[in-house]
Amino acid sequence: MWQLHQFPLCPFSRKVRIVMGEKNLAYELVRENPWDKRDELWQLNHAGRIPVLHDTTRGTTIADSRAICEFLEEMVDRAPMLSGNSATRAEIRRLVALFDENFFQDVTAPLLEEKLAKRLMLRQPPDSRALREAMKSAHGHLDYIDWLVDTRAWLGGSMLSLADMAAAAQISVADYLGGIDWAGHEQARTWYAVVKSRPSFRPLLTEKIEGIPPPAHYAMVDG
Amino acid sequence: MWQLHQFPLCPFSRKVRIVMGEKNLAYELVRENPWDKRDELWQLNHAGRIPVLHDTTRGTTIADSRAICEFLEEMVDRAPMLSGNSATRAEIRRLVALFDENFFQDVTAPLLEEKLAKRLMLRQPPDSRALREAMKSAHGHLDYIDWLVDTRAWLGGSMLSLADMAAAAQISVADYLGGIDWAGHEQARTWYAVVKSRPSFRPLLTEKIEGIPPPAHYAMVDG
Ligand SMILES: N[C@@H](CCC(=O)N[C@@H](CS)C(=O)NCC(=O)O)C(=O)O
Ligand SMILES: N[C@@H](CCC(=O)N[C@@H](CS)C(=O)NCC(=O)O)C(=O)O
Repeated sequence: MWQLHQFPLCPFSRKVRIVMGEKNLAYELVRENPWDKRDELWQLNHAGRIPVLHDTTRGTTIADSRAICEFLEEMVDRAPMLSGNSATRAEIRRLVALFDENFFQDVTAPLLEEKLAKRLMLRQPPDSRALREAMKSAHGHLDYIDWLVDTRAWLGGSMLSLADMAAAAQISVADYLGGIDWAGHEQARTWYAVVKSRPSFRPLLTEKIEGIPPPAHYAMVDG
Repeated sequence: MWQLHQFPLCPFSRKVRIVMGEKNLAYELVRENPWDKRDELWQLNHAGRIPVLHDTTRGTTIADSRAICEFLEEMVDRAPMLSGNSATRAEIRRLVALFDENFFQDVTAPLLEEKLAKRLMLRQPPDSRALREAMKSAHGHLDYIDWLVDTRAWLGGSMLSLADMAAAAQISVADYLGGIDWAGHEQARTWYAVVKSRPSFRPLLTEKIEGIPPPAHYAMVDG
């Protein structure tokens, strides 16, 4: 039995959930609040981070969302997310790194800090300058998605891939936290509406974090 | 012709150079100072980061060290660095992420900031508290390497792999900057002495950054 240790607004956990949904894999969710720093999580993953995929039957444990996605690609033929020749696969992996690292650092992480960590743990209001900076960076990243969508069928090339999943996972968390303004990003908006309407995405869109409601358009499939 | 855009003390560039050395691939080095933010680099890599591997003949460009290493694994059979079944490969990739992300964040990045960026760009002395913190974190990571070496032939399992290359690349930069104290880490020290003595490592150990000399033991193969 697969258990996924995750947090609903962790974009890396979301990426893995979407990929597992596309591949039609059954798994159980184990909620981890990153700020709890539970001993059990540190025992499963020396980095103390989520997501962690744990096979309770065989005892296998895989940490790091990219390691998990590569593993799922190798194990499950259904719904390939990293197909094509080596150059195409390299391009998909480049984009995954861009969204996992740069989009996360510039946009998702500061939004999580200001709107979630400060509210739930420190009972402090968000710093409006940090929020403005994050939203400005989001525009830069959405410009790049506009450009990708103008030149390709999907972000990574001619096929739906991990690049789309990585980008949509980050955007969905940023959108939940009110950090995405689609004005001027018609191509990115259209691409995201398509990804978001996939059945693999639906379970994410109905989840709520206590005390932090998403904006009205967040879960609307044409929103 | 392959060109690698890199900086001598960038641990991700080092990881790629070691892997290309192991695989016996010819390439040209193009030096990029990360702080220069050259337009040419941004044109090659939208993330503005090194390393970038550029095939000047075919025009292929690959950014992100993990994407580059996966590409080299797929293209070149010689000296496999990611072999074994999917669970073993996942374990190697987990460790690569641990060293690329956690070791880098906790140890290499603060050392680069305090000892290189501050000196070369701001002409400021390093913050001794930040240096102490980084060296304390290094001990924690070396403890974990001690434990891995106690239980396995190489960090990722029974074979030399990307996990060893990722760890050794981070350590070599931290060691250049005086951040590694081997006291109490006999297993890690022995493992590192073996990796460091490989021919793929040698070119890195003789390079110097102007104005920042490495400690005396840095390039000694039994040091
Ligand atoms: N590279 C990792 C990053 C995972 C990550 O940063 N997870 C966050 C939650 S979104 C976390 O667990 N943070 C707690 C910590 O770093 O201590 C992955 O792709 O899985
Ligand atoms: N995930 C990237 C990280 C690369 C990275 O952070 N490179 C640093 C130099 S060590 C850099 O180019 N920094 C400049 C910047 O982030 O603007 C990889 O593995 O290649």
